Amino acid sequence: MAIIEVTVVPLGTGDTSLSRYVADCHRVIEKYNVKWELTPMGTVFEGELPMILKIIREMHEVPFDNGARRVSTTIRIDDRRDQVATIEQKMKSVKDKLKQED
Amino acid sequence: MAIIEVTVVPLGTGDTSLSRYVADCHRVIEKYNVKWELTPMGTVFEGELPMILKIIREMHEVPFDNGARRVSTTIRIDDRRDQVATIEQKMKSVKDKLKQED
Amino acid sequence: MAIIEVTVVPLGTGDTSLSRYVADCHRVIEKYNVKWELTPMGTVFEGELPMILKIIREMHEVPFDNGARRVSTTIRIDDRRDQVATIEQKMKSVKDKLKQED
Amino acid sequence: MAIIEVTVVPLGTGDTSLSRYVADCHRVIEKYNVKWELTPMGTVFEGELPMILKIIREMHEVPFDNGARRVSTTIRIDDRRDQVATIEQKMKSVKDKLKQED
Repeated sequence: MAIIEVTVVPLGTGDTSLSRYVADCHRVIEKYNVKWELTPMGTVFEGELPMILKIIREMHEVPFDNGARRVSTTIRIDDRRDQVATIEQKMKSVKDKLKQED
Repeated sequence: MAIIEVTVVPLGTGDTSLSRYVADCHRVIEKYNVKWELTPMGTVFEGELPMILKIIREMHEVPFDNGARRVSTTIRIDDRRDQVATIEQKMKSVKDKLKQED
Repeated sequence: MAIIEVTVVPLGTGDTSLSRYVADCHRVIEKYNVKWELTPMGTVFEGELPMILKIIREMHEVPFDNGARRVSTTIRIDDRRDQVATIEQKMKSVKDKLKQED
Repeated sequence: MAIIEVTVVPLGTGDTSLSRYVADCHRVIEKYNVKWELTPMGTVFEGELPMILKIIREMHEVPFDNGARRVSTTIRIDDRRDQVATIEQKMKSVKDKLKQED
């Protein structure tokens, strides 16, 4: 299982507001049975790679479906195979370190 | 004011766990008077550009201070000047859109 | 057709040199009939989305096949549908602008 | 010395073409005494960190100076301190590996 961050941005739309596109991207991800969360800079979710790529593919189409003619999509995949890597475990691991050394 | 996401990763450390470095990066940002939050893929904070670049500079040094010899830092800046852009307002804007159209 | 940049990095390998992994990623892309080039920060290629995602999937596995247990992959997709967007045309467009205004 | 990749993109401009902004970003970097090159997905250059951050700061302002009201800037820093890391050496290293194992 990998953790992924996706940011899908339309270019040349004439409107500086992007929240409508972000909301539509979330509607895509909600259809899938994956753990996800909204961050101030994108959408983070976890899953197996074939599922992840399928979701990315669909999110990337959202602005085009809404009239955009150019889309910039940024993706970061954090894939760890020496232990189960979930969003929850990753966040817990950092918070534990912060507590330990305080 | 801009919103920024930073991910600082040491390369070639021989240890797949990075939470120690992430925790130390948060100790850097806590010293500054900026609004920030931990995400599963990095650290997000808001501020004026000179302050942002100063914090990035300091976070980027964290793994070197801990013995790393190569560091990969990824930064995304979302800078909006037609209205006040804060993490809180950006998150609210998407959530409002999600509610509206449900 | 879209233009894509991929950077595949193993984490926790104990060796700061990554050129071996980059070379193996290029062996993956050379098997496909796509236009690609090596940049100092990753691999850029152009193609249709299904092909692009297939290549990403395969490149992402390279470090795992070489013993890595954690891999960080960064992807940026620039997808333009109002005109044919190729690497060559995109580079030419910038160079023309640089000449024009000199 | 570090190697850096920067991509500066205006949002909400109403025009899908970005080459004008990219050309202006190159005019910024040409003023500095750094080794740089244009890639299909951004600008790559090498330098010491304080200089790098100064150049980023100036490139990030380019679209605002041209009327944009929102700018998205993506930066990746590859900083290696166990040996001199230059664009030239990094490219050579991968090409050597590709030759060796052919």
